[in-house]
Amino acid sequence: MGNKLQNYLDDEVFIVQSECGISLVNAKLQIINAELSMRYGRKVINSKLNRIKSYESTVAKLERKGLEKKIEVVHEKINDLIGVRAICSYIDDLYQIADMLCNQKDVKLIKIKDYIVNPKQSGYRSLHLIIEVPICFQNSTHWIKIEIQLRTAAMNYWAELDYQLRYKKGEKKAFIIGEELKSYAAMIENMDKKVLELRKRIESI
Amino acid sequence: MGNKLQNYLDDEVFIVQSECGISLVNAKLQIINAELSMRYGRKVINSKLNRIKSYESTVAKLERKGLEKKIEVVHEKINDLIGVRAICSYIDDLYQIADMLCNQKDVKLIKIKDYIVNPKQSGYRSLHLIIEVPICFQNSTHWIKIEIQLRTAAMNYWAELDYQLRYKKGEKKAFIIGEELKSYAAMIENMDKKVLELRKRIESI
Amino acid sequence: MGNKLQNYLDDEVFIVQSECGISLVNAKLQIINAELSMRYGRKVINSKLNRIKSYESTVAKLERKGLEKKIEVVHEKINDLIGVRAICSYIDDLYQIADMLCNQKDVKLIKIKDYIVNPKQSGYRSLHLIIEVPICFQNSTHWIKIEIQLRTAAMNYWAELDYQLRYKKGEKKAFIIGEELKSYAAMIENMDKKVLELRKRIESI
Amino acid sequence: MGNKLQNYLDDEVFIVQSECGISLVNAKLQIINAELSMRYGRKVINSKLNRIKSYESTVAKLERKGLEKKIEVVHEKINDLIGVRAICSYIDDLYQIADMLCNQKDVKLIKIKDYIVNPKQSGYRSLHLIIEVPICFQNSTHWIKIEIQLRTAAMNYWAELDYQLRYKKGEKKAFIIGEELKSYAAMIENMDKKVLELRKRIESI
Repeated sequence: MGNKLQNYLDDEVFIVQSECGISLVNAKLQIINAELSMRYGRKVINSKLNRIKSYESTVAKLERKGLEKKIEVVHEKINDLIGVRAICSYIDDLYQIADMLCNQKDVKLIKIKDYIVNPKQSGYRSLHLIIEVPICFQNSTHWIKIEIQLRTAAMNYWAELDYQLRYKKGEKKAFIIGEELKSYAAMIENMDKKVLELRKRIESI
Repeated sequence: MGNKLQNYLDDEVFIVQSECGISLVNAKLQIINAELSMRYGRKVINSKLNRIKSYESTVAKLERKGLEKKIEVVHEKINDLIGVRAICSYIDDLYQIADMLCNQKDVKLIKIKDYIVNPKQSGYRSLHLIIEVPICFQNSTHWIKIEIQLRTAAMNYWAELDYQLRYKKGEKKAFIIGEELKSYAAMIENMDKKVLELRKRIESI
Repeated sequence: MGNKLQNYLDDEVFIVQSECGISLVNAKLQIINAELSMRYGRKVINSKLNRIKSYESTVAKLERKGLEKKIEVVHEKINDLIGVRAICSYIDDLYQIADMLCNQKDVKLIKIKDYIVNPKQSGYRSLHLIIEVPICFQNSTHWIKIEIQLRTAAMNYWAELDYQLRYKKGEKKAFIIGEELKSYAAMIENMDKKVLELRKRIESI
Repeated sequence: MGNKLQNYLDDEVFIVQSECGISLVNAKLQIINAELSMRYGRKVINSKLNRIKSYESTVAKLERKGLEKKIEVVHEKINDLIGVRAICSYIDDLYQIADMLCNQKDVKLIKIKDYIVNPKQSGYRSLHLIIEVPICFQNSTHWIKIEIQLRTAAMNYWAELDYQLRYKKGEKKAFIIGEELKSYAAMIENMDKKVLELRKRIESI
């Protein structure tokens, strides 16, 4: 049953199309970064990362959501099959990058999930965009769905710890640390606000 | 007089816009290469190179053409201010890449100069495209003009020798070698045809 | 007087040797990152950055230190002519990378400046290594001096704000923000300790 | 039986060590290229490529050579488990790169296979070096064996055609084309000599 799905996700065409989508989004982020870095006189995007979801974690997500293991379901319901992450220093940069990306004619915005204004229950904060970009492939245009994760370095700390913790789930100690991590999210948020405020005051001199 | 032009060509905005254009074209070539390499089971683009013309060689070109040293003149008359070169093994790949690039909605083809069918007097062969690609910059779309040079590795041999020879111009020996190089162009052309023919015969087995 | 120095710093040989040194150090950091990332199951180096000091800031530094504008003086006294920065999430990773780098046979450690244990008066924290690496160049081995800056993302926030502030020096407001930034260093230090402690507790489950 | 070997070749430690070796060799080639390109005023290495041999082709090679499918045998007898290829324009550059690489203190030359002076029966020409480079890994130094393939772009044409032909082996037509390809090797050799001669004459002006 799942084999057809596995074949599809391991298929060279799927992989190549995904890489093409990533390559296009990377060029767009590079151009945005070049403009903003010049305008503000500081590096705006610190680092970028991308990944294509493996068959195993796609299936795990389908099961968690109670969905059928079918290619069509994956395409419709799984938005983070392809993911690109950009890490910045300041919160306002994240929103500006999101704006500049979504204002481009060949970018379709499917959904914004603003986990900065509305953090997940776990305490997770980031700005997620689900977009589609057009890839010319085999003589026709394919719209590739990509999840863009925009985070500050401070948010990234939290997310890294949360990610490592997830693998220890079920353990009593993990539950306790999870609760502590949740309360720790406020400290991270505070730091994001503080550095942004300081930067703005320095700019205003 | 030339200072205004120099300031413009050394200006950060011009450099950043040029780099953005290069970055977009590189992504497009990477995507085309990914598709073709998958389709044919062989690497299609061997290497890529790009450059932004220096102030000095821009002025030299203006002088050679008897043109005024003005920004507007540069934009209208100098097509290779920004250049991207892709080197392939086979002639038919060059034309296919050109097709796939020009068929994209956000690529405006300004001019094709087919120096393969009609080599320059010197013997120079390559497929040149002058295209424009849109860059979102400072809240508006800028069309950046870029010269794409598509060559086989064999053509590249010839062009490299010719390029080195140009710096010795005026010398008597240089003239003699130039004449020899011209006659040598036929051997290169022959090799391009031969390897293409062999590749097609191998594919047809 | 300074012209000879300028010629030297703009010289192709100096630039190429510097880039070769950077390229070697980058390969070493990539190898260290690959081993540690595999060992710990998480990305260890988040991002890398490198730069060659410009003539202008080299001269500014010589003046600040009351040194003569001579090539020999630059080589002996200016340790950060070539700089490579690596940003990590956790403090212990910084020391491990430093250890692994310095233990390599072809790395000469010249000096360690541990601004984490002993922050600068300004509040600046980072681990600096001055090392020399051997470059085979023109048939002989040249030892290239490079400053390695190892920082956490939290330290990097602080350093970025401090760097922007430096350009506003002399202003009254800049002095006030500077004092505030100094007191803010403690909050950053706290965050570094907290995330490290949490990570260790998660690992110990 | 073969499973242990497969596990080893798919093992993360083996992959990471191989990538570290590749990364070190790439840095070395980049440094050599920087020096030579500066010295001669032309790009010396046109492109680089690397690969780690898959389990399937390693086993195929062991079978072809009548060797046991054991890890120790692979390490001792298979020299091209890790391969790095550099493509240049001129034959003399290949030998110079080989010299500069082998003269480095941390490069052990295991074997030179000069298929330019002594082409393979098939007509294949390239300069192969088997070298070992030291990788600091898990607190000890590991010597990683790597095959370096140095070729001109002309030799690469031939090798590409030969490679594609290999997949059609057994077919009658393939045999005929193979014979033709063999005779064609002379034309390629000729071209290598001709461009080198022309380049030298241009340099001597």
